[in-house]
Amino acid sequence: MDMAFLSSYPVLNDDLNLLPKLQALKLVVFDVDGVLTDGRLLYTEQGESIKRFNVKDGVAMKLLPKWGIQVAVITAKDSLPLRRRMEELKVTHFYPGCHNKAAAFNELIEQLGILSEEAAYVGDDVIDLQVMPNVGVALCPADAHIVVQRHCPIILSKAAGEGVAREVADMVLASRMSLEQAYELAQKPEFEK
Amino acid sequence: MDMAFLSSYPVLNDDLNLLPKLQALKLVVFDVDGVLTDGRLLYTEQGESIKRFNVKDGVAMKLLPKWGIQVAVITAKDSLPLRRRMEELKVTHFYPGCHNKAAAFNELIEQLGILSEEAAYVGDDVIDLQVMPNVGVALCPADAHIVVQRHCPIILSKAAGEGVAREVADMVLASRMSLEQAYELAQKPEFEK
Amino acid sequence: MDMAFLSSYPVLNDDLNLLPKLQALKLVVFDVDGVLTDGRLLYTEQGESIKRFNVKDGVAMKLLPKWGIQVAVITAKDSLPLRRRMEELKVTHFYPGCHNKAAAFNELIEQLGILSEEAAYVGDDVIDLQVMPNVGVALCPADAHIVVQRHCPIILSKAAGEGVAREVADMVLASRMSLEQAYELAQKPEFEK
Amino acid sequence: MDMAFLSSYPVLNDDLNLLPKLQALKLVVFDVDGVLTDGRLLYTEQGESIKRFNVKDGVAMKLLPKWGIQVAVITAKDSLPLRRRMEELKVTHFYPGCHNKAAAFNELIEQLGILSEEAAYVGDDVIDLQVMPNVGVALCPADAHIVVQRHCPIILSKAAGEGVAREVADMVLASRMSLEQAYELAQKPEFEK
Repeated sequence: MDMAFLSSYPVLNDDLNLLPKLQALKLVVFDVDGVLTDGRLLYTEQGESIKRFNVKDGVAMKLLPKWGIQVAVITAKDSLPLRRRMEELKVTHFYPGCHNKAAAFNELIEQLGILSEEAAYVGDDVIDLQVMPNVGVALCPADAHIVVQRHCPIILSKAAGEGVAREVADMVLASRMSLEQAYELAQKPEFEK
Repeated sequence: MDMAFLSSYPVLNDDLNLLPKLQALKLVVFDVDGVLTDGRLLYTEQGESIKRFNVKDGVAMKLLPKWGIQVAVITAKDSLPLRRRMEELKVTHFYPGCHNKAAAFNELIEQLGILSEEAAYVGDDVIDLQVMPNVGVALCPADAHIVVQRHCPIILSKAAGEGVAREVADMVLASRMSLEQAYELAQKPEFEK
Repeated sequence: MDMAFLSSYPVLNDDLNLLPKLQALKLVVFDVDGVLTDGRLLYTEQGESIKRFNVKDGVAMKLLPKWGIQVAVITAKDSLPLRRRMEELKVTHFYPGCHNKAAAFNELIEQLGILSEEAAYVGDDVIDLQVMPNVGVALCPADAHIVVQRHCPIILSKAAGEGVAREVADMVLASRMSLEQAYELAQKPEFEK
Repeated sequence: MDMAFLSSYPVLNDDLNLLPKLQALKLVVFDVDGVLTDGRLLYTEQGESIKRFNVKDGVAMKLLPKWGIQVAVITAKDSLPLRRRMEELKVTHFYPGCHNKAAAFNELIEQLGILSEEAAYVGDDVIDLQVMPNVGVALCPADAHIVVQRHCPIILSKAAGEGVAREVADMVLASRMSLEQAYELAQKPEFEK
């Protein structure tokens, strides 16, 4: 455990069930807009043809699977830039254009053979409340919609697009080991490939 | 009513007429640049060919009509990306390239058969003062021009592009019901379509 | 004079010469990157092919000439998006790709038949110090380079791209009349054209 | 020395070895994403085809070599917009698509005939820890990853993309002379070319 890092989350002291739940995770599910992006939609005349991700989140999404924690992305929207980025990050559990997030989530955990309590879900808006009440750990960015904040046990310190996925990865890995140990792999030349 | 949410607006206590005015609204009119966007204009050599909207505002503009509150957009500028986004959000009362905002507003309320007091107007700059003094509720983003702030009863907590339309929708809906109830519809898979 | 507005600048009290200097201005010169833009350069493979302006600055640059104050733009860089925006704002005193800002400035005031003390200059970086010490009023954005801040009498409250030109226009106009009066013109439908 | 500037870094008082190390530098190496950019990756369907730099960093990268301090850029990513910007800034020691940053760094200092203690390295993420422990001065942006912040003696006041390279140049030059003197060259018309 990385106590120095975890101590910046008072909620882990207030609810002693959260830490064991973080330690039990086998899957983290991310929404896209307002989580991996800052929620700004860049429109050209072709529609939403530019998307803006955070380089630090890329490290999170490549590193979690190396520690046995699957990564999934479920989003109601769909676009070529999004698909391009997900390919580069090798996100295999990817559900674009998904309006029934609960159904997608249930299908996914069945396919992976894990329990819903072994999953975390990171969302920022009311559509994510389809899934958030049913997972082991629900998390939201600092600027999530007020209704999501009301029903979410862990409110992150990063706002949308500022590296939310990375902060989640830090928290999950810090529940098990020091962050120095967690990131040893990511310092190797072969990690970036 | 969602007292917990409304209590974050001290102005509603200072001016007791505002709450009934919010409850009486049948129409909300939005300006675009500096309200739905952060006021930054992205120019390529073709002119303004990229526009940056907020995903959370999209939920607001689709949800308000479901609760019987019409949504309109009146803007002095015009561009293909703007038209594309308005189409996706099914904004039917859309006035691009409009220099006479007062005339457009008057035409609209006549067409809808509503009184000007039953309309809210959200603007950020002096051109919006053509309309703002004549509506039931005038609102502006936290970073609106100083002259607008001086003449606007409700200054929102969000700055331009940070989800201003969503904050307005939250406030209007919270004047009538809990936000949880307000957003039940938006959690249904069919809402996103 | 708009005392309410001007009172937010303590420097006007500390240096009583500044207000008469503001009142005497016949020209305001703006740098582009780090002043009209936030200083971020958007590169595609074609070079700098996207530029990001602020809609509120557009109002400033169109309104100042109506009150008899000329507007000029002098910048070391050049790009098609920049030219496009300057055309739309009808900036006739426009010097793109200008490395000798002092020469351009001197040529301009001679052409306009005004004194250097009747000009204001708004810049954010050391290259602007070619001109800033020689004008009536030198101003810089809140995030200007430290060396510019050290040598600039008025540091604005807006950072680069947040509406710096508009803040300068507000200050110049508020030195002569109420902002309400200053913006009467800008509320007319014909202003936007 | 520019004491006024350096006094804003308390760490220089806490560790008296840092100032002589800054004064001995002959090379500064920059990472790109999260250092020269704000770490946001702009994706179109062609992949990462837009990059966002800071105009103030350009001055830093052109000025340092004039004072005998080489500039290098080592990054794991590669893109045409990045190459275009590096060409414009005449960065000759440029290592794009580099996964083994330690190897690139060692090759570079050998080629330049300098010691690792005569180099500074500016990075924001764990991959940069391949090099940071081995240089004379390691620096990171204010929003660098927590693990980098833990192991980096100098945490800058600017966050990624806000002018990090410029702040580093200011610090390096201020260790040797006044900033006014340091920037005399950059005020000359011929500097921008």
